Amino acid sequence: MNTASSTHTTMLELGQQARAAARRLRVSSGAARSAALRALARLIDEQTAWLQAENQRDLDAAAEKGLDAALVERLRLSDKALQTMMQGLRQVADMPDPIGSLSAAAVRPNGMRVARMRVPIGVIGIIYESRPNVTVDAAALCLKSGNATILRGGSEAFHSNRALGQLIRQSLQGTGLPEHAVQVVDTTDRAAVGEMVTLTEFIDVIIPRGGKSLIARLAAESKIPLIKHLDGNCHLYVDRAAQPDQALDIAINAKTYRCGICGAMETLLVHADIAAQWLPQAARRFAAVGVELRACERALPLMPGSRPATEDDWATEYLAPILAVRVVDSLDEALAHIERYSSEHTESIVTQDLAAAERFQREVDSSSVYVNLPTCFADGYEYGLGAEIGISTNRLHARGPVGLEGLTIEKWVLNGNGQLRG
Amino acid sequence: MNTASSTHTTMLELGQQARAAARRLRVSSGAARSAALRALARLIDEQTAWLQAENQRDLDAAAEKGLDAALVERLRLSDKALQTMMQGLRQVADMPDPIGSLSAAAVRPNGMRVARMRVPIGVIGIIYESRPNVTVDAAALCLKSGNATILRGGSEAFHSNRALGQLIRQSLQGTGLPEHAVQVVDTTDRAAVGEMVTLTEFIDVIIPRGGKSLIARLAAESKIPLIKHLDGNCHLYVDRAAQPDQALDIAINAKTYRCGICGAMETLLVHADIAAQWLPQAARRFAAVGVELRACERALPLMPGSRPATEDDWATEYLAPILAVRVVDSLDEALAHIERYSSEHTESIVTQDLAAAERFQREVDSSSVYVNLPTCFADGYEYGLGAEIGISTNRLHARGPVGLEGLTIEKWVLNGNGQLRG
Repeated sequence: MNTASSTHTTMLELGQQARAAARRLRVSSGAARSAALRALARLIDEQTAWLQAENQRDLDAAAEKGLDAALVERLRLSDKALQTMMQGLRQVADMPDPIGSLSAAAVRPNGMRVARMRVPIGVIGIIYESRPNVTVDAAALCLKSGNATILRGGSEAFHSNRALGQLIRQSLQGTGLPEHAVQVVDTTDRAAVGEMVTLTEFIDVIIPRGGKSLIARLAAESKIPLIKHLDGNCHLYVDRAAQPDQALDIAINAKTYRCGICGAMETLLVHADIAAQWLPQAARRFAAVGVELRACERALPLMPGSRPATEDDWATEYLAPILAVRVVDSLDEALAHIERYSSEHTESIVTQDLAAAERFQREVDSSSVYVNLPTCFADGYEYGLGAEIGISTNRLHARGPVGLEGLTIEKWVLNGNGQLRG
Repeated sequence: MNTASSTHTTMLELGQQARAAARRLRVSSGAARSAALRALARLIDEQTAWLQAENQRDLDAAAEKGLDAALVERLRLSDKALQTMMQGLRQVADMPDPIGSLSAAAVRPNGMRVARMRVPIGVIGIIYESRPNVTVDAAALCLKSGNATILRGGSEAFHSNRALGQLIRQSLQGTGLPEHAVQVVDTTDRAAVGEMVTLTEFIDVIIPRGGKSLIARLAAESKIPLIKHLDGNCHLYVDRAAQPDQALDIAINAKTYRCGICGAMETLLVHADIAAQWLPQAARRFAAVGVELRACERALPLMPGSRPATEDDWATEYLAPILAVRVVDSLDEALAHIERYSSEHTESIVTQDLAAAERFQREVDSSSVYVNLPTCFADGYEYGLGAEIGISTNRLHARGPVGLEGLTIEKWVLNGNGQLRG
């Protein structure tokens, strides 16, 4: 059998096993699912030396290939990375079971009760790049929410992912959960991803984690719905009625908390009425933390050290210590700019004017809209979701940070005592 | 310009206009949207003669083409059909505005408030077959929920749909709502549908209403997510602990309320312990209302007049006065049959046994799962949604009957007073 047809067969088998596992997971107890997660944390602790030896094989291969240092660091299962993993597992285990909860029931005029029950999606495929911690983090959230998972990591982390997959399988033993609840794709054949996105019968949703090119490719190819993350071109609008010092702190935090996250501010919009006063101070604060400024014509003279912004700057997600700055004459102009350039991820207004705050929050069509907060709060933990599998830029199903609820759906449950229709 | 490129240009233009309209609708008042719906009801009333004259052109063409009588009847805008339409419009107008409502806010440890606000999806495409009432019903629900709509009806209803589209445009005048909030595709070129499903930039979701072949074709072609309805192979399971007379009434109602609706029972499963007693009575009741029975080997001798079921019968959605009947030895066997053959639409158990009811309701993976109710209750009005655009067999986003809520999404709204991260 050649590789192509063998990969096809392998993926089909994984799909069938996942679907069968999903049927059993659907009716599993939350206690069993949490017990498996705690067992996995224990196994990672006990098998640290072996895990790190397997991880070393990936690190050696990466060094040999000459991968850059940052990439190699992301591959490393350091003691600290494993501690974080174990902590995450115990935290997810402790969360309430999302499955089986009922919405408040409405009683219809004929006396029947109508409610909704939360249930797992079914089978979730995760396609991700180098970081092996995704194997455990994603498996934990999917298992907790009663879904079967097929994990396909990057070839750079092959040995690490295979070792983690082995521990996950072990953690399921003795819990009564199906052995194929979590499956790690055990081939480096690049065709596996192409096969995976055609398994419409066996996979209900795919969550890609990785660079834009991976996600764009999957969006084009996949016949299975994706919960995906594209751009995060986030805006902060400092209104004429902003409290100036608060606006400075928020702007600095929005850009520099971590400039590589998707919630980092990329464009700062400032109302003309306060620009002359506020922008020079902002320029000093940004210069002090090494942020390069690209300013519109009106902001340029107010921000020493800045250079002129081009049209491209408004559309760019830098993910770097660079910031575009534009002066606007009104809230309307700010809204229009955001409407045109935003990637509908996270936008924020700084203002003490209630009407401006309410209009901004109602009218901006992004997955998260803030008042008097930095955009970098876009994160499942910060929102109180307990953990997140990612941030979705989809409009349908899950939007914004996706926690356990985003990995579930609802069914209608109706209870009667012989009511008839018509 | 040839037809193909002219249709391409037309559809692109409709898409751009819809997107622009959606931006304005998003921030429109619920009162304005309801006023437009009431205005439309008045216009339909005032223009009845003209509407029916336009409709007559479609009826004449249909007669000329030799379309069958049932199809012609579905095309007809009779006085009664128009009354139902106007009533529906006023009813939707009276419903509470779904847009702008906020979920209960959680306060995070740092004091910021996290809530979700309900917002329109954006632009909705409706692709449907002959019934011109869909033009008004779908436009009403989409407009009420703040979405822009592009409606593409069947060529058999071309003149009727064009006339209704004209009244809809008129109804928007003077309300402050954008004139392109609702657009009826005004070409009979069949390529319009193919063009429509590629407009990913301008249409957020497509709702097909029609036969399975239309929906299968769209599911294969569309790059835009669908809210779609496939099969309704619905099961009723009469448990050993069923109250026999209640079970008879429920079974008859489930099959005969209307045998052509997607919630009609197609297979009846009966526990072996009560089969000998119950099935002969059921056979008499079904015979009296002209339902043909296709029975498994064990049910066959208990149901005079039935004929043997084949494997195909378990998988068939008859949408006709035909019923498959099977005797099962246990709840487990009923669950396994449903797992194998159900289309995940609506299933119901009749029982007085609480444990059996709870297990059935938890374990059956359908969009609606009932206890002691006929499956024919699968309908948005019955569920209290006020109106429905259809019943979705999707798992993600909208599942089961889709009302106004299914035409909306949520965004996160966070309010703080200068909290910073990290």
